[in-house]
Amino acid sequence: MPNPSAAMLVIGDEILSGRTRDSNTHHLACELTKVGIDLREARVVADDPDAIVAAVNALRERYDEVFTSGGIGPTHDDITAECIARAFGVGIDVRDDARQLLAEHYARTGAELTEARLRMARIPEGARLIDNPISVAPGFTLGNVHVMAGVPSIFEAMVASVLTKLAHGTPLLSQSLRIERGEGDIAAPLRALAEEFPDLSFGSYPFQRDGAFGSNVVVRGTDAARLDAAMVRLNALFPA
Amino acid sequence: MPNPSAAMLVIGDEILSGRTRDSNTHHLACELTKVGIDLREARVVADDPDAIVAAVNALRERYDEVFTSGGIGPTHDDITAECIARAFGVGIDVRDDARQLLAEHYARTGAELTEARLRMARIPEGARLIDNPISVAPGFTLGNVHVMAGVPSIFEAMVASVLTKLAHGTPLLSQSLRIERGEGDIAAPLRALAEEFPDLSFGSYPFQRDGAFGSNVVVRGTDAARLDAAMVRLNALFPA
Repeated sequence: MPNPSAAMLVIGDEILSGRTRDSNTHHLACELTKVGIDLREARVVADDPDAIVAAVNALRERYDEVFTSGGIGPTHDDITAECIARAFGVGIDVRDDARQLLAEHYARTGAELTEARLRMARIPEGARLIDNPISVAPGFTLGNVHVMAGVPSIFEAMVASVLTKLAHGTPLLSQSLRIERGEGDIAAPLRALAEEFPDLSFGSYPFQRDGAFGSNVVVRGTDAARLDAAMVRLNALFPA
Repeated sequence: MPNPSAAMLVIGDEILSGRTRDSNTHHLACELTKVGIDLREARVVADDPDAIVAAVNALRERYDEVFTSGGIGPTHDDITAECIARAFGVGIDVRDDARQLLAEHYARTGAELTEARLRMARIPEGARLIDNPISVAPGFTLGNVHVMAGVPSIFEAMVASVLTKLAHGTPLLSQSLRIERGEGDIAAPLRALAEEFPDLSFGSYPFQRDGAFGSNVVVRGTDAARLDAAMVRLNALFPA
C-alpha cells in the first residue's frame, strides 16, 4: 500500500513579503518523513480569503492530509478559521469547550478574555480541537485538514499531537554520499545506477564551496537492505 | 496601476523530504518587495513531471511573472527544462549558443563536455537565456516563466539578472512596532486603526520568548507620508 500523502499550506503575507522566513514547512517535512507520510506539495498564500479557500479546497481533494500554519490568532488579520469554514461550506461560531479552555487560562494568568481573544474560540462546525500546550488557544481538525498556529513552538507542539492520531506509513530511509566532483562527471554512472535500482530514488544535490563544485547524492527508499546494496555500488563508483 | 504580480515555484524532492531548507523563496521575496513586484504565492512540488507541468501552467496563467528554482543541472533527476517545454507545448533541444557557452567554459577549466553536461544546453524553443556568472550553464525565460538553478548563489545571480529586464512597480514600504503585550490586548485598537487607514495593511506577528508574549505590528503601504501618520497613531496607542 502506498504511504499516505500530505500537503502543507502556509498562510501569511509576512512570508511572501520576505519579512519572515517560514520554518514550519521544514519542520513538518522532517516529522512526516519519520512516520512515512509523504509530503508532496507545499504552498504559501497571502492573507486573502479567496486565495486561502481555493488552496484549501485544491489540496484537501488531492492529498490524504493537509496541514495549515498561521492566521488563527485574535487580530483582524487572522482569518484562517473563517476561510476553512467557507471552504467546507459549514458554519463557524464560538464553541463552549474552546471558550472554557480560554476562560480558565486567562483566569489563571489574570488577563481579560476580551472579545478579540474570544475569536480564538470560534471553531467550524464538526471540527475536533487540537491541543495547544503552550498558549492554550486550540487548533482544529476538520475532515482531513489540520489547522495550526504559525508561531513555530506552537505549530510544532500541534504537529506532534496531530501525528499521534494519523495513520502512519513506511518511513522513508535515506543514505547519502558526498562526492567532490562536478555533477557533469557523475551524471552518466549515476543514471545507470538509478536504472539498476528502480525501487529507490537517487537525487543529486550540487553544492559549491570555496570555488569547488561537488554533489551530495542521496538515495531513498523503504527497504534498508536495498539501500545498503545501492550504497556499496555507489561507493565503488565514486571512491573518496 | 496595480503592481505586477508574481509566483515562485520550487522544484525538488529534497525540500519536501526535509533534507534541505529552501532559502530561495525568501531571497526572491525580499528582492521582489524592493522593486514593487508582489509575490502572491509560492509552491514547492516534487521531481514529478505531471506535478511540475500542472503547477507551471496554473501559475503562469494566474500571475504576471513566475520564477522557478531547481532541476536544471546535468543529472537524471534534473527534469525542469523538459517539463517547461511540455507545459508550453513547444520542442526542446540542444541550442548552439548555450552549447558554445558550455564548450568555452569547459575548455577553460579542462573538464570534458560530457553528454550529461550537454543536457544543460537543452533549451525550449523560443526561450531567452539567463546569464549564469557562476557556473555558466544558463537559465532561461520562456513567456512569463523564469527558470533558474536551485543552488542559492546561482539562483541569486540569475534573479538579479532577470529583475533588470522586468517592469517594476511601486515598492512596498513597511514600518513596524514591537509591542510587549499579548495580541488579545492589542487586537481591538489595532482593528480600529486598520479601518481608519484602509490604504495600508496592518499585520500582527506574535512572538513568544522566555515565556513572554508580544507582537510585532507591521504596517505596509506605498505612501511614505501615510505610513508615518499611521505609525504616530500606533505609537500613541501602544506607548513603550
